[in-house]
Amino acid sequence: MIFKTVQEIHTAFYRALEEADLELMSTVWHQDGQISCIHPLRAPLFGTDKVMPSWKLLFTNGRSLTVEVKILTQQINDELCIHLVRETLTPITDNRGGQPILATNSYQLIDGSWKMILHHASPTAVVKQRSTTDLPSGNQLH
Amino acid sequence: MIFKTVQEIHTAFYRALEEADLELMSTVWHQDGQISCIHPLRAPLFGTDKVMPSWKLLFTNGRSLTVEVKILTQQINDELCIHLVRETLTPITDNRGGQPILATNSYQLIDGSWKMILHHASPTAVVKQRSTTDLPSGNQLH
Repeated sequence: MIFKTVQEIHTAFYRALEEADLELMSTVWHQDGQISCIHPLRAPLFGTDKVMPSWKLLFTNGRSLTVEVKILTQQINDELCIHLVRETLTPITDNRGGQPILATNSYQLIDGSWKMILHHASPTAVVKQRSTTDLPSGNQLH
Repeated sequence: MIFKTVQEIHTAFYRALEEADLELMSTVWHQDGQISCIHPLRAPLFGTDKVMPSWKLLFTNGRSLTVEVKILTQQINDELCIHLVRETLTPITDNRGGQPILATNSYQLIDGSWKMILHHASPTAVVKQRSTTDLPSGNQLH
């Protein structure tokens, strides 16, 4: 599958996530290169052999989420694109509102098709379940 | 200050962080453009007017951290660079080991100098203080 524009691959990535479509997810990622994937609060995964099994695990139970996505910023040139996005993932079984996630997604134009090379997702401060002691404060802000 | 290479601006960013040097931090960031900064578990900040005060707050108490940084991956072309880095921030007052942070840093070549345009930092799973209930599991991995 060829993704001629960044919008196309962005749409495909989130469609794969929402539909638990491992084949589409596999098409989205660069298969031969240096790729990195960080699921929220998890250790980083490097390379196809680590990244794709993580999606397979995520998709074990089939479609389970609805996904709303908003691109917050985009930096792009001929070969690289960086998106900062806000994801709202709502379990199908619980429509009271999903967990807000921030993600940096990077895409690279390779042989005429954009490919995902980085997905770095993290929860935001508005996760209500988190206790205040988990939030850094003062000079531990960073 | 001109940062002719990505290594120079990478070094300057982490020197500014370690030395609580607001002036250097201000030089590192692109001042006129679309910039984004996400401190761990915090809401995203956009633009100089929001990003720089967050560093000023962080630096209120002066130098308080030692910073170890390892670049895990780099994607770069003529105008854009994306680093995934592991930061270990250790409070000066407590040398038992710092909090591991993953950060995606993006730099853009602007008028002959690399400038930071994105810093997205997040804690990793190995933060021992976090309760297991905060970690997504199964199909909530993402």
